[in-house]
Amino acid sequence: MTFDYRRTHTCGELRKADTEKPVTLSGWVHRRRDHGGLIFIDLRDRFGYTQLVFDPITNPEAHKLAENLRSEWVISVKGNVRPRAEGMANPKLKTGDIEIIVHQIEILSKSKTPPFSIADEQVDVNEELRLKFRYLDIRRGDVANKLIVRHQTMMTVRKFLDEKGFLEISTPILGKSTPEGARDYLVPSRVYPGTFYALPQSPQIFKQLLMVAGMDRYFQIAQCFRDEDLRADRQPEFTQIDIEMSFGTPEDLIPIIESLLQEIFKNSLNLEIPKTFQRISHQICMEKYGTDRPDLRFEMELHRLDNIVARSTFSVFLDQLNDGGIVKGLCVKGGADLSRKNIDDYTNFVSLLGIKGLAWIKWQENGLQSSIVKFFPEEIQQELIKEMDMEEGDLIFMIADQPTKTNQALDHLRRKIAKDRGLIDPNKYSFLWVTDFPLFNWNEEENRLQSEHHPFTSPNLEDIGYLDSEPLKMRSSGYDIVLNGYEIGGGSQRIHNSDLQQKIFQCLKLAPEELQSKFGFFIEALNYGTPPHLGIALGLDRIIMILTQTENIREVIAFPKTQKASDLMMQCPSKVEIGQLKDLQIKVPDTQFSWT
Amino acid sequence: MTFDYRRTHTCGELRKADTEKPVTLSGWVHRRRDHGGLIFIDLRDRFGYTQLVFDPITNPEAHKLAENLRSEWVISVKGNVRPRAEGMANPKLKTGDIEIIVHQIEILSKSKTPPFSIADEQVDVNEELRLKFRYLDIRRGDVANKLIVRHQTMMTVRKFLDEKGFLEISTPILGKSTPEGARDYLVPSRVYPGTFYALPQSPQIFKQLLMVAGMDRYFQIAQCFRDEDLRADRQPEFTQIDIEMSFGTPEDLIPIIESLLQEIFKNSLNLEIPKTFQRISHQICMEKYGTDRPDLRFEMELHRLDNIVARSTFSVFLDQLNDGGIVKGLCVKGGADLSRKNIDDYTNFVSLLGIKGLAWIKWQENGLQSSIVKFFPEEIQQELIKEMDMEEGDLIFMIADQPTKTNQALDHLRRKIAKDRGLIDPNKYSFLWVTDFPLFNWNEEENRLQSEHHPFTSPNLEDIGYLDSEPLKMRSSGYDIVLNGYEIGGGSQRIHNSDLQQKIFQCLKLAPEELQSKFGFFIEALNYGTPPHLGIALGLDRIIMILTQTENIREVIAFPKTQKASDLMMQCPSKVEIGQLKDLQIKVPDTQFSWT
Repeated sequence: MTFDYRRTHTCGELRKADTEKPVTLSGWVHRRRDHGGLIFIDLRDRFGYTQLVFDPITNPEAHKLAENLRSEWVISVKGNVRPRAEGMANPKLKTGDIEIIVHQIEILSKSKTPPFSIADEQVDVNEELRLKFRYLDIRRGDVANKLIVRHQTMMTVRKFLDEKGFLEISTPILGKSTPEGARDYLVPSRVYPGTFYALPQSPQIFKQLLMVAGMDRYFQIAQCFRDEDLRADRQPEFTQIDIEMSFGTPEDLIPIIESLLQEIFKNSLNLEIPKTFQRISHQICMEKYGTDRPDLRFEMELHRLDNIVARSTFSVFLDQLNDGGIVKGLCVKGGADLSRKNIDDYTNFVSLLGIKGLAWIKWQENGLQSSIVKFFPEEIQQELIKEMDMEEGDLIFMIADQPTKTNQALDHLRRKIAKDRGLIDPNKYSFLWVTDFPLFNWNEEENRLQSEHHPFTSPNLEDIGYLDSEPLKMRSSGYDIVLNGYEIGGGSQRIHNSDLQQKIFQCLKLAPEELQSKFGFFIEALNYGTPPHLGIALGLDRIIMILTQTENIREVIAFPKTQKASDLMMQCPSKVEIGQLKDLQIKVPDTQFSWT
Repeated sequence: MTFDYRRTHTCGELRKADTEKPVTLSGWVHRRRDHGGLIFIDLRDRFGYTQLVFDPITNPEAHKLAENLRSEWVISVKGNVRPRAEGMANPKLKTGDIEIIVHQIEILSKSKTPPFSIADEQVDVNEELRLKFRYLDIRRGDVANKLIVRHQTMMTVRKFLDEKGFLEISTPILGKSTPEGARDYLVPSRVYPGTFYALPQSPQIFKQLLMVAGMDRYFQIAQCFRDEDLRADRQPEFTQIDIEMSFGTPEDLIPIIESLLQEIFKNSLNLEIPKTFQRISHQICMEKYGTDRPDLRFEMELHRLDNIVARSTFSVFLDQLNDGGIVKGLCVKGGADLSRKNIDDYTNFVSLLGIKGLAWIKWQENGLQSSIVKFFPEEIQQELIKEMDMEEGDLIFMIADQPTKTNQALDHLRRKIAKDRGLIDPNKYSFLWVTDFPLFNWNEEENRLQSEHHPFTSPNLEDIGYLDSEPLKMRSSGYDIVLNGYEIGGGSQRIHNSDLQQKIFQCLKLAPEELQSKFGFFIEALNYGTPPHLGIALGLDRIIMILTQTENIREVIAFPKTQKASDLMMQCPSKVEIGQLKDLQIKVPDTQFSWT
């Protein structure tokens, strides 16, 4: 008769009210303590910890087995619940009021000594080792909890969108290569040697085709792929909440997304976020924050100072203004306490972004202080103080350079100062829609217009008059959603009129053959009765990172890749057998690379 | 002021009670009829059809525009609901009691003439054209309805498993190549030229690792990939409902799967299926049906006749028995009506499966009829009648050959006869668990044992004593679930004891280097405290095919591949740019293949 290891309860479940109950628990040996003959084991599973007691007098056999137990062995025990002795309760544990006096124990499997401790939460394990032994890293609980949030969030998303009439429709992973922006991952075809599939960078074309197909409302929690050199917050495969709807406008979609995010935050963090989010046009956003994804958890807006400083005698500023540059500044509240060393550090910080100088003025007890104050007549000083909302005790930083660089540097500086001075409430969530993006930008290299987003983005119809005359003035119907300084999603109204679509392609001066081979089938599809439609894609990984307050995307993915796109646990990518390459008729260089 | 095309109602929503309401509807022009000045349009969207009326007297402007409308143009109209005239109601339509008298119309987009009619349900379009214009094919409604069932089923699965404590955890698409059974799709690595990722054939190893990681209960609706030459019911990418749980036995998992299928059938078809499914051991299943996935919607069991026919004088049977063959038969109820021609057809049918002869005996008014009756003494005839449950009017077929061929032929014959004679109720759903599979089979070529399922399948522990002596006698802990003759899923208890795992690998005589490079990381993982665990994978595509009564897997996938693994709509696989191949450092043959 084999030992029946099936649990009556999980390790997080028993309470004082269960006293006397006979139970079976199974799990991992988390910690063992020997106390005057008694052996105590903290038994662990995903649901919690329960203290087991082995008594050498009443159950010598079980006690003897317990003496051999080591960390991470998997055991199953039968015993009875009893309250812990007076003063021995552990209020930190859900099961801290009880323990199990064990009658019978079975060792289900043993464990080698793990390469790092599972039980010690404080231990700082290097990430390579954690990724190599991901199954043990997950067992430590931190990643596991994030995966649980991820699961719950996916459930919330699906339930919400289903109730709003969206259908989840899977689109192919083996798709067509239409390289644009990012590099495709390719998959050689065996049936047609020399040809390839590509893994999708997004289901964009498929979801628009589903609207052409009349599916009305689509969504998908979709795997997407980009073969790029990875930044810390990128992965070769990532996940989008991909949404598209027909016969709507942004005024229909935006409230749906706001409600969706309300649901997510309520279900995950039990937090009420605003019912509607503020909206800022791309232009105003760039003016006020120097970026199209500002962190609004703190103020510190940028101010354009050209008109004021033009009347100073500070040649650094005047030269930049003459040279097509701009001058912008921000006000650090209470920043007069910054030391010379602090200011030098910030100057170095912006110099790494290519900015030659960081001007500053402090307002101290005895008035404005700075080596440059002398270039500013009293009247100009007053105007500056007014424009910058400066008060006694504040400091202003100013940068003069070309617009893009100035904005970029002040954006970085603004965020760095906020971090350094503790201006960011980690429990605050500031949502923002950025709208009215430019439709086109100018590709200097190719001397032509290119789409800011993608060529299927509809222009803002108010600007349609500029199409032939001043296309760079045109705004698109795109919208991004920003949370705490991260772009968590973006989308647009699409073009549903094939005449307009043709005109846009003419503007872009795409070679007809290129257009045909990449998008021919899609352009053809738009000719058969395309409904007005629009959509959005939200970055699931990023949302989970924010919900779980982590900066590392690898923490929210069960089996992530490194920044070199490798899987340290599986040891892949790896060499394959000659026969596999023969089947595909492809030749590869001899590789020196080896995992062993 | 642009026309606001946003709907107040869908095309399937309005009823007589809505009479007089001002409404906006948007959709596709399904059909147009001109009747004595009035123009009638059936407007279509995913939700239904609504009749629009354009009256030249009351709204000449709208009427004029309506005159130009063609099939599949997308329009938006504003008007009022009114009851249809006496006798004009259409009971086939949900909206058949009303129509919209249109005041205003906007043409949202025009359509070229589609390559096949959307409105005519009867039209038989060849599948190539349907796949090329998939977005129009979906618009016809048949595929759309299947996609809706698919969405609903996925929602049901997720809700059900979430409530049972299973977590959906995404596993990588870029994995490691461990070819076994089927061919992998490979993805060349750019970072490590000469190495490859592989697309997963299943998340098997990942889900077991998640159990090692302590995640306790996992599921995933997972995309899986196999680069095989495709049969009609296969696709290069297919979808599994993938499930794994810890600390359980099949007695825990099987009821969960039964309940899950009950939910699916209730939600999709409003059908109550049995609370528990019958279970048959692999051995009995092969005896009774000649296959491990029998269709139990009808009876017609196979009977082993060796003992009876051994006492006949029919040399064909006797020779086979002497040669290690077997004799089995089935009884066709009422089959005495089969003509000589019918019987010849069945003889030809089994001959295609390599069977030389199909013996038959009819019981007609005047007793048993057959050219072989003379070889069967009266006593043997009676035994045969008894064994086969034969009655007057029946016919028995018998085959004598090697066991595997005999079973295979009789399985095919049984299903063909059932189909020919209308024995299959299309509204019946017969579920079955097949258990106690053999653990190993014998690989003649390599002269060694191989796993019937995979090497991580646990043996049935009752048979553990045979491991060293008679391993081919061992049964596994695997279980398949069969519905109407299709294997819709399968799984097993896994090995959690690393000693036993080692022994199994020894039995399989896998080369240590091969074992190490393919599964080294996984075998290592099992050494760190593996809980008892088990799981199953259900074929989602197949389940949807059965729910929607289709034999063609492409009908239940939005954008399927052909049997040559190509996408006729996107025209892929396709050639890629030289630069892409340079990035990957791979060389491919010049291909003559071209889509244009």
